[in-house]
Amino acid sequence: MNYKFIVKFISILIAITSLFMASSIPFALYYSEKTIPQFVIIIILGITAGMLGLVVGKDAPNRLNRKDGFLLVSLSWIVISAFGSLPYILIAHLSFTDAFFETMSGFTTTGASILANIEALPKSLLFWRSLTHWLGGMGIIVLTVAILPMLGIGGIKLIKAEAPGPSMEKISPRIAETAKYLWLAYVVLSALETVLLLLGGMNLFDALTHTFGTMATGGFSPKNSSVAYFHSSYIDWVIIIFMFIAGANFSIHFRVLTGKFKALNDEELKAYAVIVLAAVLLVTLDNLSIYKNIFQSLRYSAFQVVSIMTTTGFVTADYSKWNGFAKTILFILMFIGGCAGSTGGSIKVIRIYTLFKQAINELKYNIHPKGVFTLTINGQIVRKNIIFSISGFFFLYMATFFIVALLVSMFGVDILTSLGASAATLGNIGPGFGKVGPVNNYAWLPSTVKWILSTAMLAGRLEIYTVFVIITPAFFRK
Amino acid sequence: MNYKFIVKFISILIAITSLFMASSIPFALYYSEKTIPQFVIIIILGITAGMLGLVVGKDAPNRLNRKDGFLLVSLSWIVISAFGSLPYILIAHLSFTDAFFETMSGFTTTGASILANIEALPKSLLFWRSLTHWLGGMGIIVLTVAILPMLGIGGIKLIKAEAPGPSMEKISPRIAETAKYLWLAYVVLSALETVLLLLGGMNLFDALTHTFGTMATGGFSPKNSSVAYFHSSYIDWVIIIFMFIAGANFSIHFRVLTGKFKALNDEELKAYAVIVLAAVLLVTLDNLSIYKNIFQSLRYSAFQVVSIMTTTGFVTADYSKWNGFAKTILFILMFIGGCAGSTGGSIKVIRIYTLFKQAINELKYNIHPKGVFTLTINGQIVRKNIIFSISGFFFLYMATFFIVALLVSMFGVDILTSLGASAATLGNIGPGFGKVGPVNNYAWLPSTVKWILSTAMLAGRLEIYTVFVIITPAFFRK
Repeated sequence: MNYKFIVKFISILIAITSLFMASSIPFALYYSEKTIPQFVIIIILGITAGMLGLVVGKDAPNRLNRKDGFLLVSLSWIVISAFGSLPYILIAHLSFTDAFFETMSGFTTTGASILANIEALPKSLLFWRSLTHWLGGMGIIVLTVAILPMLGIGGIKLIKAEAPGPSMEKISPRIAETAKYLWLAYVVLSALETVLLLLGGMNLFDALTHTFGTMATGGFSPKNSSVAYFHSSYIDWVIIIFMFIAGANFSIHFRVLTGKFKALNDEELKAYAVIVLAAVLLVTLDNLSIYKNIFQSLRYSAFQVVSIMTTTGFVTADYSKWNGFAKTILFILMFIGGCAGSTGGSIKVIRIYTLFKQAINELKYNIHPKGVFTLTINGQIVRKNIIFSISGFFFLYMATFFIVALLVSMFGVDILTSLGASAATLGNIGPGFGKVGPVNNYAWLPSTVKWILSTAMLAGRLEIYTVFVIITPAFFRK
Repeated sequence: MNYKFIVKFISILIAITSLFMASSIPFALYYSEKTIPQFVIIIILGITAGMLGLVVGKDAPNRLNRKDGFLLVSLSWIVISAFGSLPYILIAHLSFTDAFFETMSGFTTTGASILANIEALPKSLLFWRSLTHWLGGMGIIVLTVAILPMLGIGGIKLIKAEAPGPSMEKISPRIAETAKYLWLAYVVLSALETVLLLLGGMNLFDALTHTFGTMATGGFSPKNSSVAYFHSSYIDWVIIIFMFIAGANFSIHFRVLTGKFKALNDEELKAYAVIVLAAVLLVTLDNLSIYKNIFQSLRYSAFQVVSIMTTTGFVTADYSKWNGFAKTILFILMFIGGCAGSTGGSIKVIRIYTLFKQAINELKYNIHPKGVFTLTINGQIVRKNIIFSISGFFFLYMATFFIVALLVSMFGVDILTSLGASAATLGNIGPGFGKVGPVNNYAWLPSTVKWILSTAMLAGRLEIYTVFVIITPAFFRK
């Protein structure tokens, strides 16, 4: 293993993160909060770590094999979550368990929170909280990989281990280039949403934090009642639309932003749109008995459906009080998630879509055993070994879902809450069902459960294999 | 399509079934029940149908292609369930919906019941109810295939479409032979359990009906409180052991019964035993807070664990009152089920075991992309296309589970009950969670839901593909 390089990389990552953290300070100044000393200490600590890492890893070879890559990515997320929890510990005096849970939930864009009274906390801390979403959404490691060449460290192939979802295609053959394009689309769309939210009457703090929560499909809100706080139909619809955008492939967004509208002709995007529209329609109809009129029903149904499907987790209505049908739809959507190359989590539309097409082929094959049925997506044949790996992923995901639910239930948690918490953390969604529903939080859970769920969030964000690989005994064998 | 042969086959099947039904009459006589006219009418009807079918299908060619096979098997189950529901309609005056549900639940060995007060019904009718389990367990069609050569109709290859589970090996190259061996083991073990239950103080009626429910992993009991009625530790343990046996591969049983004890050295059997033992251990420990002592806890935990895992559904304790941990274990076991070649339903141990081994290989492959990792079971390499079809099955099973739950929830059923009812019917288990839990029944559900769940039972019993294939548009195309 190339431990020296791993140390150097993670140190740089910490330094970059602490530079981002500095953006909390203007809010501390503006709102006259006494959090500046703590932030300054942490940022100095982070930059010092970066310096030390550069010294220690000075003569580290720029070569990473697969094992190094897996270890580097997993360790990066763990270390950065530990580092990112320092503001919670020093400012809000949270326990390390709670602070780590909140930070991991932030970076993995889960949005599950252990905070009971969010609005009581300093805005500068809440800004950092939402910023973890935004950094984690497109992948802080992806960003670092894009930045590395500027530091004279090039040619690192990491994106595959962290990039969100299975990529069926590439924008650019050069990975650092791809990372830049994705981040560019991400920044442009984030700026656009911020402006639209400002036009809706939000102040800059609210507009930025909610944009971070939306574009990263995270779901942290600085308001106790989440987006419901604003009682604004305009704001609801802006966030619905941008959640939908964030759940789609950013390589498509990049191409659309550069005028290539043909990119919209994409099978996964269509499947994603069809699922969302169908779910919105069904839930809206089912909720007619609950809301005053169809427009109210559409507004609240669309928000919750898009929020869960894209794995964001913002809330404008307590869906735990909806009928069984609407709740079951939301539960199923939790296992679909966003598109490949989006900031959304869970299994991803492309995988479900591929498995669905494959199942139909299997049915045809059962009727005509001598027939040849190829699986094509966007006109291209999907090779057998890709279908193989998607099937394997699906099994591993479901198995992990059941195991996490089982582990949670060991600590006296009821079955619906256990299943809900497992689906909501593994899928990086946030709110679940039962006692971790949309108007509850994760604060009441035992410490051990918080660590289990933190691990589930990481496993979900890194698409399970990356985390499982490094706990495989074979990993440490020669 | 060879419709003539299909008609002939189903007619013979009805006739055979009605001959079995005649075994209810001695009980009607013994218990002085006024059910004999009804049974006689139905049996005459059944035999007449058989005669007519032989006439109509006289010149039907003895050749079946795949499409014919799928249609024949699916239709057989539907028609025989309709025919088998006649006693409920004529004797207990049930609606056709309820009678069909109860009969489909019987033949598919699900054991989900719409009867509120079971003990109020004539024993002769309850005997027929339990007999549907026993006939469906090893496959009445398999039996018919074994009987066909005696009627001069031979060489029909149907077993694959109905045999319980993916068979990795064959006892005999001739299918009718295999069917005979499986049925022989089934009859011998059933006789053995009946004797042991008689020794435990049951009368012949109770011993036979509970044997049928056990060996078929069905779960219908003629007692309102299921096996709990007997308050006998001996009876509990006899049924636990025979449920375990019924959930294992009958080809192993046949070989053990003929002295070939080497057959026990089977990877699936070991995995099955390990899962059952681990679950019993964990649930027993978790239930220590509920039961007086460890022996009580072991007795009730083992019964419920083995009952759910083997997809039987007998009940001696209300597990809906257990802790979340024990309930989550039961929920997970619902998705594992029995072994291939057992009478148990659900996904089956061999499939889960294969997918698990494959997932480990994928992890290894992620570390060593140039390594070659073959998947072996019982020393034999499992070919890629088998893993492929198992992965496909897993996805289709989970997708069907979610869709059935969704359809059920459309009718105002809460989410936990919907998920429970879907898992319990698709897996041919019987009792689920929520309002279809171990001390509830399915009587209160709307008619449409009963039809949806009847379809789910059939899809589960026929391993999904068979049912899905005949609703594929391609099926009816040339």
